Amino acid sequence: MHFRATSSIVCIKFTGEGCVAMVRISIDAMGGDYAPAEIVKGTVEALNERSDISAVLVGDESAIRRELDGLKDWPKDRISVHHASQVIEMAESPVMAIRRKKDSSIVRGMQLVKNKEADAFISGGNSGAVMVGGQAIIGRIRGIERPPFAALMPSAKGVVLVLDCGANIDCRANHLVDFARMGSIYMQDMVGIKNPKVGILNIGAEEDKGNALVKETFPLLKACEDINFVGSCEARDVSAGTCDVVVCDGFSGNVLLKTSEGIASFLLKSVKKGLMSSLRSKIGALLIKPALKSTIKEFDTDTYGGAPVLGLNGLVVKIHGNAKAVTVKNAILQSETFCEKNITEKIRDRIALDNTNKKLNQKEN
Amino acid sequence: MHFRATSSIVCIKFTGEGCVAMVRISIDAMGGDYAPAEIVKGTVEALNERSDISAVLVGDESAIRRELDGLKDWPKDRISVHHASQVIEMAESPVMAIRRKKDSSIVRGMQLVKNKEADAFISGGNSGAVMVGGQAIIGRIRGIERPPFAALMPSAKGVVLVLDCGANIDCRANHLVDFARMGSIYMQDMVGIKNPKVGILNIGAEEDKGNALVKETFPLLKACEDINFVGSCEARDVSAGTCDVVVCDGFSGNVLLKTSEGIASFLLKSVKKGLMSSLRSKIGALLIKPALKSTIKEFDTDTYGGAPVLGLNGLVVKIHGNAKAVTVKNAILQSETFCEKNITEKIRDRIALDNTNKKLNQKEN
Repeated sequence: MHFRATSSIVCIKFTGEGCVAMVRISIDAMGGDYAPAEIVKGTVEALNERSDISAVLVGDESAIRRELDGLKDWPKDRISVHHASQVIEMAESPVMAIRRKKDSSIVRGMQLVKNKEADAFISGGNSGAVMVGGQAIIGRIRGIERPPFAALMPSAKGVVLVLDCGANIDCRANHLVDFARMGSIYMQDMVGIKNPKVGILNIGAEEDKGNALVKETFPLLKACEDINFVGSCEARDVSAGTCDVVVCDGFSGNVLLKTSEGIASFLLKSVKKGLMSSLRSKIGALLIKPALKSTIKEFDTDTYGGAPVLGLNGLVVKIHGNAKAVTVKNAILQSETFCEKNITEKIRDRIALDNTNKKLNQKEN
Repeated sequence: MHFRATSSIVCIKFTGEGCVAMVRISIDAMGGDYAPAEIVKGTVEALNERSDISAVLVGDESAIRRELDGLKDWPKDRISVHHASQVIEMAESPVMAIRRKKDSSIVRGMQLVKNKEADAFISGGNSGAVMVGGQAIIGRIRGIERPPFAALMPSAKGVVLVLDCGANIDCRANHLVDFARMGSIYMQDMVGIKNPKVGILNIGAEEDKGNALVKETFPLLKACEDINFVGSCEARDVSAGTCDVVVCDGFSGNVLLKTSEGIASFLLKSVKKGLMSSLRSKIGALLIKPALKSTIKEFDTDTYGGAPVLGLNGLVVKIHGNAKAVTVKNAILQSETFCEKNITEKIRDRIALDNTNKKLNQKEN
């Protein structure tokens, strides 16, 4: 048995098969439209599937216990409840909410990560509060100024990571360079893509195109030796899979992500409606149902869990406000992989190395 | 017979049925991947459908004549050729190209509009050159600083107009207010939507959300009495049809438009691939083919013709670089409606009125 020195996973469970490194996940049981029912259900489903995960459900204890009592089969030794009397509402101002609601499920859940009692925190609550809380409570990795939301999207070649998807509305060039580095680590270690191709979201393929931010960032990315920068990536090509990592400011990234969700949903609804337009197509629809279902699943963002906030001293994952049990379950499994692969530590090492290089260069000049 | 004083349509043709106001359209026969063949073909198709349109094909005369000669049936009295010896390539710098290539199809075609020899110009060539040329040659309506590309996109409630889709990468708040006014006129008069709902593209529904530009623009739009401003519109809701007009800077609008195109194409390819996965689904696919085809047509941007540049002293329409005959034809029919409805004159009147009001307010204060 050995302890990985760089890992945050310190909880070990002895089982019949030997010892297992246990990943401990703290979950906001009050965040989202279907909380706490679907959050609790998804947590139980994940833990029933994997014996190397433990969970702390954070929120109103009696409400959580009621949900747990309603489920017949759940691993009592690996699920605990951490009471929090307050809930941060969706419309609240993030900064004020984090400052004032000290006993909210988001603040309490993040404190567990801060105090090393949990390795990751998952929430479907107020995105701004998750972002502000992550920075204020868990803290940023030294050298990272703006932790981004990183979202996996389906593409013709598998998946593509888009960051920032909405955490930092107005970004500077050096932030996008950090996104490129962190995104590369994520795609390499989480998704298994060797030397991931990094592109910058742009409105044309030529180097001289783009807004002020893109023009300033482009040469910086080109000069980065530790990433595989391939140039501009037009929005049309994101889903074609020409890049593995696409960096952009949070406003553009949010437009990209939300447009994709909107169009996919609208298009599938239109196809379904079209199929109901005649008897002939109705019969055809019955025959294609299984095939269509598996295609739709590829486009279901729930399949990919949630959007991790990269660059914090511990993992924070934001799931959709309308997330159901399956998303919660996938976000938990995704968090387990993230912790097991030591992504946080790898980001920290890479950024520290970059800072050292910068200092050396400054001394030389 | 009467001449509409505000209209740019001055060419009248006497036919057996009486007199017809003729809309004259100048077309860049050299712009795009399939030029001149598909451009010439689409022009002939449009003119064979409508007897109240005449066309000037601008470009290499012998190449255009060769294409025309290959078509058996075309209205010889309504199609003329205007020779231009140069072509502006896709990768050329727009400003330099417009300045230097005085005998290019874009410059020559636009001069016809400038000199009132044509009412509209259509091109599938270099977007930047179309934009720069439109301003430099045809000129902006007084009071309009930044003419935008306005693109119609399919939505659950019909169509939605998004502007700017890429003409002005970095915009100011007053530009977005102009977009809102011009977009409202377009949707009301071209599409027939009464009191069109105007939204600003944003990353959340709340008024305090958004980047610096959105925050500055929001109160200005709210204060506009001549538009029906309904607040923020998330990218996800654009295709849901919550607004009729969505205003944004050219970078975000381009991301929105291109993401939609990319996702729609990717999704339909995936559905088709899924349908070929088993014998059962293959049989189903045959049955649903007609229904699916008509759904796909709704999503085909070719159906909507091209993106007009609004705010110029004459109509300029940009079509896709990969446009085929059907797009050219639809762009010509769309241009005819635009001219027939006097959209340019309506925009000019509205902006002039706004400027007068502003001056009166300044005097009063």
